[in-house]
Amino acid sequence: MKVLVIGAAGMVGRKLTAALLKAGQVGGQEITDLVLADIIAADPPATGIPISSRAVDLSAPETAATLIALRPDLIFHLAAIVSGEAEADFEKGYRINLDGTQHLLEAIRLAGLKTPYRPRLVFTSSIAVFGEPLPADIPDDFPLTPLTSYGTQKAIGELLLADYSRRGFVDGVGIRLPTIVVRPGKPNKAASGFFSGIIREPLAGLEAVLPVDVGVRHWFASPRAAVGFLLHAAAMDTSGLGQRRSLTMPGLAATVDDEIEALRRVAGDKAVSLIRHEPDPVVAGIVAGWPQAFLAKRAESLGFVAEQRFDDIIRVYIEDELGGQIG
Amino acid sequence: MKVLVIGAAGMVGRKLTAALLKAGQVGGQEITDLVLADIIAADPPATGIPISSRAVDLSAPETAATLIALRPDLIFHLAAIVSGEAEADFEKGYRINLDGTQHLLEAIRLAGLKTPYRPRLVFTSSIAVFGEPLPADIPDDFPLTPLTSYGTQKAIGELLLADYSRRGFVDGVGIRLPTIVVRPGKPNKAASGFFSGIIREPLAGLEAVLPVDVGVRHWFASPRAAVGFLLHAAAMDTSGLGQRRSLTMPGLAATVDDEIEALRRVAGDKAVSLIRHEPDPVVAGIVAGWPQAFLAKRAESLGFVAEQRFDDIIRVYIEDELGGQIG
Repeated sequence: MKVLVIGAAGMVGRKLTAALLKAGQVGGQEITDLVLADIIAADPPATGIPISSRAVDLSAPETAATLIALRPDLIFHLAAIVSGEAEADFEKGYRINLDGTQHLLEAIRLAGLKTPYRPRLVFTSSIAVFGEPLPADIPDDFPLTPLTSYGTQKAIGELLLADYSRRGFVDGVGIRLPTIVVRPGKPNKAASGFFSGIIREPLAGLEAVLPVDVGVRHWFASPRAAVGFLLHAAAMDTSGLGQRRSLTMPGLAATVDDEIEALRRVAGDKAVSLIRHEPDPVVAGIVAGWPQAFLAKRAESLGFVAEQRFDDIIRVYIEDELGGQIG
Repeated sequence: MKVLVIGAAGMVGRKLTAALLKAGQVGGQEITDLVLADIIAADPPATGIPISSRAVDLSAPETAATLIALRPDLIFHLAAIVSGEAEADFEKGYRINLDGTQHLLEAIRLAGLKTPYRPRLVFTSSIAVFGEPLPADIPDDFPLTPLTSYGTQKAIGELLLADYSRRGFVDGVGIRLPTIVVRPGKPNKAASGFFSGIIREPLAGLEAVLPVDVGVRHWFASPRAAVGFLLHAAAMDTSGLGQRRSLTMPGLAATVDDEIEALRRVAGDKAVSLIRHEPDPVVAGIVAGWPQAFLAKRAESLGFVAEQRFDDIIRVYIEDELGGQIG
């Protein structure tokens, strides 16, 4: 099978690529060809599978047609302008997150008009499709009420995915990812950055700033779990989805205090002492509107699995990013 | 104030235009200029208010910019490819119902980048944003679960309206209209056509075909009520809407049997005897997936008013379309 990953250069895209190459198959079907697309060329790992990497701009209407002309059997659409940037640059957010997704779906539909074509499309949505007022535990049938442009664009992507799937143009699965922690790399400016930072920096012997109260509760999964969701969505039987093609992924509800105590259990008091509480009312205000926890029953019943304890999320980071060793 | 009606040549558009000209004002502000736009030029009535009529194609990106260059203070966006046609012609539905709405919002945003501009935009959505499985009485916070391309396009329009309003580019109100009965004119091919036909044709002494069971229950308002919703949305204080900019309009839940008994009370047994029951499984199947009734509490609390009895819907038709006389 031919696999296309759009957004392959991002953190999740790189980990997904590595997992695809390691497995060599999806749902028992051998991967014969892997195409990596992103705004910058992804670094193609050395492998026995024919692999190509393309630098493309999904907001250009011809890009999707060029990629779909390769007729991939399986497409992962991970490309997105993230929440903060989509809010700061309104036009760019809509161009990539809405127009880009629409171009992709249209290219798939138009390809199918010539000769039959109905690829599996795994679309990464986000819990940002939900906005206040929210219950403490959000059920699967809660209405899409985004309060950011990013969340709006993802909600529209879900609606398009459902309609194109209903019409038989594509076999779509939308997965609403939890906040992914622990993100590797340097601290970034995302409002959610501290959720990773307060684990990652102390594990490296560095100070981390905590801008919110320790009582703040949020919804998490590891990068490894995210890759697991993507691979499961790629291979699952979609007949169980009915018309509701997007699923809230399972995750783990934890407070900042839960994070800190897990860090203490895994890495000791010295690591915890590197967390400096420096309240930032702007960040606290943004985070206050975020979902706290979900009842992801549909996804769980369809076989999606996430971590159960924050300790496990930290251990995944140590295994996958630190070679199993705390520095 | 300058008023723009997009979709002015349709049934609701024509009645809205007449109501605007009769009132001469909206929310106490005098109408100084009225622009009617549709794919065919609307017939501008003789009036003291300067009025112009334009034949435009909203799916052409420059159309919205040309209309918005007039800087209307109030915009009614009624233009749409209807449900059946949007399902039959996928591209046309998306071009008008999605791209057209997006072009309009973008034209408004871009006009405001030059000099401050934030018009009131009244957008007609539809109860087609809701699809099965549905409760018998659908609450205001029920998720958008469209099962048609038309419903998908309207749901996306609602999300865009909310985001553009949140960002301060427009002051939007989305109103989800009930099925409008009694539609004047000839029978059309819409699956919902019989709801009007079984009243309109007998009142004209003509036979009407009923393709579904008399137990079928649906959600209705008159064209006069629809115009009332539009005018109320144009003048209301939008601060009470919060971030949820679209409202399910009040209406009246009635079975086909309720319709028939109302016709009997208003026009007698002879009229009722002109209804011929000729079951059509295709129409019955489509209608079976439609909403039956709503709890439109938000809209009611914000001052929107609809008929309470089907007899009143029939009387509105007789007054507004038949000059108060049954033929």
